Amino acid sequence: MGNALQVSVVKLTGDSVKEAPDLLAIEEPLEIRLTFGDRLQNLAVTMRTPGHDADLALGFLYTEGIIAGAADVKAAEHVFVACSENRQNTIMVTLREGVVPNLRQAERNFYTTSSCGVCGKASIEAIRTVSRSQPLTPRAGISIDPALVLGLPERLAREQEIFAETGGLHAAALFDINGALLLVREDVGRHNAVDKLIGAAMMEGWLPLRQSVLLLSGRASFELVQKAAMAGIPVIAAVGAPSSLAVSLAEEFGTTLIGFLRDDRFNIYSGAHRVNVPVAELKTSL
Amino acid sequence: MGNALQVSVVKLTGDSVKEAPDLLAIEEPLEIRLTFGDRLQNLAVTMRTPGHDADLALGFLYTEGIIAGAADVKAAEHVFVACSENRQNTIMVTLREGVVPNLRQAERNFYTTSSCGVCGKASIEAIRTVSRSQPLTPRAGISIDPALVLGLPERLAREQEIFAETGGLHAAALFDINGALLLVREDVGRHNAVDKLIGAAMMEGWLPLRQSVLLLSGRASFELVQKAAMAGIPVIAAVGAPSSLAVSLAEEFGTTLIGFLRDDRFNIYSGAHRVNVPVAELKTSL
Repeated sequence: MGNALQVSVVKLTGDSVKEAPDLLAIEEPLEIRLTFGDRLQNLAVTMRTPGHDADLALGFLYTEGIIAGAADVKAAEHVFVACSENRQNTIMVTLREGVVPNLRQAERNFYTTSSCGVCGKASIEAIRTVSRSQPLTPRAGISIDPALVLGLPERLAREQEIFAETGGLHAAALFDINGALLLVREDVGRHNAVDKLIGAAMMEGWLPLRQSVLLLSGRASFELVQKAAMAGIPVIAAVGAPSSLAVSLAEEFGTTLIGFLRDDRFNIYSGAHRVNVPVAELKTSL
Repeated sequence: MGNALQVSVVKLTGDSVKEAPDLLAIEEPLEIRLTFGDRLQNLAVTMRTPGHDADLALGFLYTEGIIAGAADVKAAEHVFVACSENRQNTIMVTLREGVVPNLRQAERNFYTTSSCGVCGKASIEAIRTVSRSQPLTPRAGISIDPALVLGLPERLAREQEIFAETGGLHAAALFDINGALLLVREDVGRHNAVDKLIGAAMMEGWLPLRQSVLLLSGRASFELVQKAAMAGIPVIAAVGAPSSLAVSLAEEFGTTLIGFLRDDRFNIYSGAHRVNVPVAELKTSL
């Protein structure tokens, strides 16, 4: 259980009070550093759950538009510093000779140079310009059955042991369009879980993920839809609610966005044409 | 419903498929700018739910250690830019004459200059050094009954209408030690909900909040415990799980941290002496 820490807590239930062991999801900072040519750049610090740190760093670099793919990467390794406690908390990504990262993207995507400034429209526009190697509009002609979608959370639950124990981790899972589970990643931060997943898929040579479904254990924010779009994922299914800007971005990129996927139900917020429901009868524009 | 947007979705339930209205929690970027003397600084962009933007900006500046309190602030107002869509998405905080913000804190707290680098211990150490006007150790001698704690989520639920409708918002609520609700703030980002709450309390002249309980609708991360500590809050009660570093920080600052507060139960992770349970019999060190 490398991702969980056992502690002693006071448990109160009704009138009963006792001391008992409890498992906590581990949260620690990870510093991501980048080396290219003779330059060293400290890029970001994220609070994450240790494990799959190289996947996390590489997924972050890719979904932020800083690198274009696995071919840019020479190595991703922990670097050791003086303190004994933190030898797993700094990771160095080294790019191949001649590769120049797009560091302007490291300054948040939604800082645009236009006079329009900051709004949802500008945020979406900024993300559209990030695309380098992957077209952002995944208009893949895939089609999935509702029964397959409804079965995804159960398949994830079987894998997601730590969440069951700590209640403190978000999960992201990648399925193929037949519902076979390809990858699962967990983290205290939901953006980190998705970065870990996409980083791992990238290093497997799977990008763009045009024949896949991304399952999120929680809510779907703008940032998560953006990351999925960068990886070419055509279908996102979230157990929780999507935000307004998550739906806008999904519409913009042609992503199928499913929310409130629980028990025998779900809502389709955009891209309903990829789900085998009699949408024609509904006269929907989704 | 300024925080929610109505959209049309495809709802699937069992074998039934229909088009129906649905409410989304609104997510939009907010850019926080700071003016002091003749300087203008763009500080941050956060994805937030519109509403209480001044509270959010001021709470952010305070909990990040950039300003020392309400007395530093002359004004906090939206500024208008060219695009018609974003006139509520940029806020300018103007400091009083002579006030110099601590902008080194704007560079994330856990970047330390020590050779130790990045780890949980360094993160906690960095936060300890942020304190300017408020001692960070809230060893207030308050004492609360378990029944009061158990009743908090119900009191919040009555106020938190938008969550009930969208399922997409986090809430932070402030109670006095008799269980009276003082403030509620909601946001798609849980850190934003807490910043809105602390910003509002600061402008009310309530800091430090030594006689209060902070209720969180979700999980308790390191960052949320840090923000509560900055505001002097002695008791945090979270409906969800705390992370390992949240518990470490709460122990460090003497904060009472309660998690998994649901139905008739909760766990105490640190500072059990402030909850009226027969802890002595448990021989706990919490």
